[in-house]
Amino acid sequence: MKSRWNSHCTQCLLKKHLTNYPDTATEEERLTYIRRLFSILTDIAPGESSPVIVNRILTLQKEMFDQFVDYTDIKKHFNQLMLEQEDWIYADISSAADPIRRALQYVMKGNYIDFGVLSDVNSEKLMELLSQAKDQTIDEQIFDELMQDLTSAKNMVLLTDNCGEIVLDKLLIRTIKSQFPDLQVHVIVRGGHALNDATMEDACQVGLPDLVKVIGNGTCLQGTYLPDISKEARDLLEQADVILSKGQGNFESLQYCGLNIYYLFLCKCDLFTKRFHTHLYNGILTNDRYV
Amino acid sequence: MKSRWNSHCTQCLLKKHLTNYPDTATEEERLTYIRRLFSILTDIAPGESSPVIVNRILTLQKEMFDQFVDYTDIKKHFNQLMLEQEDWIYADISSAADPIRRALQYVMKGNYIDFGVLSDVNSEKLMELLSQAKDQTIDEQIFDELMQDLTSAKNMVLLTDNCGEIVLDKLLIRTIKSQFPDLQVHVIVRGGHALNDATMEDACQVGLPDLVKVIGNGTCLQGTYLPDISKEARDLLEQADVILSKGQGNFESLQYCGLNIYYLFLCKCDLFTKRFHTHLYNGILTNDRYV
Repeated sequence: MKSRWNSHCTQCLLKKHLTNYPDTATEEERLTYIRRLFSILTDIAPGESSPVIVNRILTLQKEMFDQFVDYTDIKKHFNQLMLEQEDWIYADISSAADPIRRALQYVMKGNYIDFGVLSDVNSEKLMELLSQAKDQTIDEQIFDELMQDLTSAKNMVLLTDNCGEIVLDKLLIRTIKSQFPDLQVHVIVRGGHALNDATMEDACQVGLPDLVKVIGNGTCLQGTYLPDISKEARDLLEQADVILSKGQGNFESLQYCGLNIYYLFLCKCDLFTKRFHTHLYNGILTNDRYV
Repeated sequence: MKSRWNSHCTQCLLKKHLTNYPDTATEEERLTYIRRLFSILTDIAPGESSPVIVNRILTLQKEMFDQFVDYTDIKKHFNQLMLEQEDWIYADISSAADPIRRALQYVMKGNYIDFGVLSDVNSEKLMELLSQAKDQTIDEQIFDELMQDLTSAKNMVLLTDNCGEIVLDKLLIRTIKSQFPDLQVHVIVRGGHALNDATMEDACQVGLPDLVKVIGNGTCLQGTYLPDISKEARDLLEQADVILSKGQGNFESLQYCGLNIYYLFLCKCDLFTKRFHTHLYNGILTNDRYV
């Protein structure tokens, strides 16, 4: 299996976390923190990727400096903001010539709400991106394969990523279910606080459990690392005919796993724009067999 | 002894060197380079400081990528540029009320020519700083102590730093010798290529050996690390009544050594401006007993 870790992510995480300690930290604490950060960034086991490493760094910061950013209010804000957009977006999806295609376009653009990758997430940019959803290109071959898979599938799992955008995930599921009413759909959210990623609490705020069965994955990583998630979540994924995976973190932690995963995300960093030969804030639909 | 190493320098060197490899480096080489860079930045023995660490990093780059910046032309350029300023500066020094004080002011400002610390060294800024030399403040107590030491001293050593500014070092020595004709003066330059630091070749270009005895220190560090330099250079330093040390690198590697060293440098990074409670491009005269 190809490595999920790379020098680009090492540099990016260093840039973000090298001085991420309180001003009151002593010189001895700073040097200890840097040494432990270096250890984390070098002692990476095969298969591990950015979400696993970020989680170790955040744990180090919590342990050494009791430093922890609470995203509760931010998550409530973005969930509410997106709930306010739900009606017009669903009207646009429903009236489109191909509602599933349009729902996918919104889902890709909505993946902007990512406090893990972006340093400035704001409502204006989000609204601008949503207004451009209908122009979001989709790989036609992969889209056709997804439609064929959905036609023959008995069950599907959607792996959510960030808060707020789960409103769009809900609209995608609603659209898919209206076209494939017999398809059984499960949603897997994070099992605990992972920056601004959606948890069961967020799923409840946007009414996702009224539509499908939602479970936490048993971990608080900003991704889905199969060796670490609960048996229930892993079984669901391994038995799914089709998996839709949202966001860069899920892509980074799942790529090369061999499951029938369709990845949907917005490219938000150099590594992704280079890898997919595209520009910042362009959405990608791909499948694990092509990555 | 206090540590010569600190978290600020770790961060600065990482910022400068983390991606300092050729574009053609493979992913495996990049990860190996980063790991070895981390090792260098954590395996630091007591007493070691930035010049020693930088030298290890440059050696790593040379070894892995055959990457080496040749400063020969840059050094010739700045030596020549400063030789062209020699006459008007020496005239200004000679006509000053206190020539040694004025010579020290020039020497501090000239320490700008530092490719190790600054990312953009240019002639315009150098000329601007030299034109401000007469306004450069000097710690009066330390200046008085230096004058008293020179009065009673039998021998003095000057440790040079960068190319170009050694013309000013020469003028300082000439000025001191005119006031203290019996004082024996030695100059120690780097023993080999250390970025743009002055070596024997540069000393010859500016005519320093016509005035005083000049020796190389036997190493190619951007500083003076006592355990590493030649016995001849170390003996000279240990037997000197007064030592004048130029530049940040010499300060970083010699501080706390206990010799009677007067440090002269221009503050060119945050660590120095914070430590000496001053602003960028301000000169400092201090002594090892006060650092």
